[in-house]
Amino acid sequence: MSEYREVIDKAKSVKERSRSLGLIKPEDKNAALLSIACALEEQAPSILEANSIDMEGAKKSGMNLQLQDRLRLTEDRIKAMAEGVRQVAGLEDPVGRIMDEWTRPNGLLIRKVSVPMGVIAMIYEARPNVTVDAAVLALKAGSGIILRGSGSALETNKKLVRVMKGALKGTVIDPGCMELIEEKSHDAVNQLMGLTEYLDLIIPRGGADLIRNVVQNSRVPVLETGVGNCHVFVDETADPEMAGKIILNAKTQRPSVCNACESLLIHEDWLPNAKDILEKLIRAGVKIHSDQRIRELVPEADPATDDDWGREYLGLEISVKTVGSLDEAIEHINRYGTHHTECIVTEDAESAERFLKEVDAAAVNWNASTRFTDGFEFGFGAEIGISTQKMHARGPLGLKEITSYKYMVKGNGQVRG
Amino acid sequence: MSEYREVIDKAKSVKERSRSLGLIKPEDKNAALLSIACALEEQAPSILEANSIDMEGAKKSGMNLQLQDRLRLTEDRIKAMAEGVRQVAGLEDPVGRIMDEWTRPNGLLIRKVSVPMGVIAMIYEARPNVTVDAAVLALKAGSGIILRGSGSALETNKKLVRVMKGALKGTVIDPGCMELIEEKSHDAVNQLMGLTEYLDLIIPRGGADLIRNVVQNSRVPVLETGVGNCHVFVDETADPEMAGKIILNAKTQRPSVCNACESLLIHEDWLPNAKDILEKLIRAGVKIHSDQRIRELVPEADPATDDDWGREYLGLEISVKTVGSLDEAIEHINRYGTHHTECIVTEDAESAERFLKEVDAAAVNWNASTRFTDGFEFGFGAEIGISTQKMHARGPLGLKEITSYKYMVKGNGQVRG
Repeated sequence: MSEYREVIDKAKSVKERSRSLGLIKPEDKNAALLSIACALEEQAPSILEANSIDMEGAKKSGMNLQLQDRLRLTEDRIKAMAEGVRQVAGLEDPVGRIMDEWTRPNGLLIRKVSVPMGVIAMIYEARPNVTVDAAVLALKAGSGIILRGSGSALETNKKLVRVMKGALKGTVIDPGCMELIEEKSHDAVNQLMGLTEYLDLIIPRGGADLIRNVVQNSRVPVLETGVGNCHVFVDETADPEMAGKIILNAKTQRPSVCNACESLLIHEDWLPNAKDILEKLIRAGVKIHSDQRIRELVPEADPATDDDWGREYLGLEISVKTVGSLDEAIEHINRYGTHHTECIVTEDAESAERFLKEVDAAAVNWNASTRFTDGFEFGFGAEIGISTQKMHARGPLGLKEITSYKYMVKGNGQVRG
Repeated sequence: MSEYREVIDKAKSVKERSRSLGLIKPEDKNAALLSIACALEEQAPSILEANSIDMEGAKKSGMNLQLQDRLRLTEDRIKAMAEGVRQVAGLEDPVGRIMDEWTRPNGLLIRKVSVPMGVIAMIYEARPNVTVDAAVLALKAGSGIILRGSGSALETNKKLVRVMKGALKGTVIDPGCMELIEEKSHDAVNQLMGLTEYLDLIIPRGGADLIRNVVQNSRVPVLETGVGNCHVFVDETADPEMAGKIILNAKTQRPSVCNACESLLIHEDWLPNAKDILEKLIRAGVKIHSDQRIRELVPEADPATDDDWGREYLGLEISVKTVGSLDEAIEHINRYGTHHTECIVTEDAESAERFLKEVDAAAVNWNASTRFTDGFEFGFGAEIGISTQKMHARGPLGLKEITSYKYMVKGNGQVRG
């Protein structure tokens, strides 16, 4: 593996520069973040220029249109980015919260206080808005940030980071708390994942391959985000209208995201109600992969293979399976799900309670679309990703979720007997 | 690397068997744990017999006396283990707690509820009491447990696990939720660290080498425990009597543990008070490694090398350094500390506040011995280790700290617009 001086130097420098970030007063920190928002808007023309270089490269290299769309910036998108920064600046400060406090019989006062993680590295793909989102969220949470986006977005990211660093000059936040890794080689990512001395946390954000690579190879602790094979289970007592609305929303409102529904389980006793929603899905352009009983209702459906139960389509496709019972649904979901978001539609409170307890996922929904698993929809005001692991934080990752804590212990000379 | 069927089979089986552990009623779970306590006492003779085989092996192999003492079981130690189990059974159930709850403007009720981690693997050294502690804490927290102790304790551990599994027969806890890895080869540990499919968490407990190996090589998320290069900083305004009491306690009350003091920093303006406590340390058998100014006070002290500042002696040795200011003390600790427990002795509240905020450690103590960083002393009622990492949980790891959470979302047909 090649080693890059750039990677070590930047990680080390961010570690040092960001040490005192947690001590900055909230109002000063927010003022610094607001100056990032202004700078993004003011320098929109030069950001668009840098972006056009990346877009040209993307077209030349034959990047697919969906990815091109993610890479593309517009005046409106830059405005939205700046607006996002202002929202983050306005959120409650996640550092220095007293999370718990108690006094021991010997008089020791123990206080659990939130503190920054330290240095967070974000490894992501072509969306340049992640560059700004991640940097601002990390800084607000008192952490330094190392950014490593896709090579295809390098010119845009370089410009965005230059603009943000420029905006921080003269504020309480040292611009050196933020660095972009410019080295395009994949070895730069491998190297980052070994820098336990300088990095406290790595958050991968992107496709399944990127996430798997980081989770499997990082020595730095990881917050695993994003892969969502989310199910909607329609129980025998489900209200047909409600079920239809939830399924259509969960599948088609934004099919490319991780909290979209990828698999539909239908209780066999509910099958008589199923034809209508299945046809609605087909009319909405959704390709159905299903078992035999579903295909009897909608002959347009393809036969599902075992692969389909585990697929995250991220598009207008869905697997549909008939199940004989709540137990079968729970078992199927715990086997094929990715611990992201799972939904039951039912009028039966007892079935709902069992589903919510027994299904192993970050979010378990009763009569609500899977699409709600999101930092904004949860009311966190921001989101750096959605965790599908059990350690540290599960589900939407807002500001609180990217902090740590320490115990402050106050005594008057206590010793242990 | 050799692969062992035993390791995969046991990990897979514990994953399956422990799935519904989180659903057991607390009173039934506690009854099952109490039957473990009884069985340990009833079967003490056969446990002691197994232990004597390990002890014989230890003597033959020339194991040092301190390690032999850790390995040795006695009737009293078995009683203490059983008592520990009873205490854990009596603790508040950590699963199913509503940690937070709120309603969104659209009517969604979001509830954050504690849930089991899943399967926890414990990798540890020669102390057989860890076998029982870890198993009972994991089960109480609703998780399956894979135990991998030292080869030198294998007969004892086999017996302890057999006794515990026997006690669980006929209770609500499936004895298959607990397995001991018997393969002695180190490759068995390497294999465990790759089983992301079956293990949710690995906790290493033991010496620095063991912990480093797990932290650096595990793909399964790790809770790093234990290495403690803990400092006491005596500020210029420290009360001499209090400082003396705290230093003596932190260094000598139990020098072999991770929260013992390993390094003493003395403000230069306090040096006139220092001779007394330094001589007390020497009289208590403590070897001092120090800078020149300290050696002028106690000529018995050895010169400290740069290595000494980073050493965890785990015995009757201490490094002592003069510092010119609070800033120098904080900087030194943040450079050489292991983020475990750091103490300031001072009468100056402002210095104390700065120290508590700026020192990066799981516990920061003002006028209290470092020895208090402990699950029992914190009032958690139990402890599976002390975390020195920032992710997930920091400091003493009680029952709550080895659980995860999920969001239960209740709606009445909400979809996302």
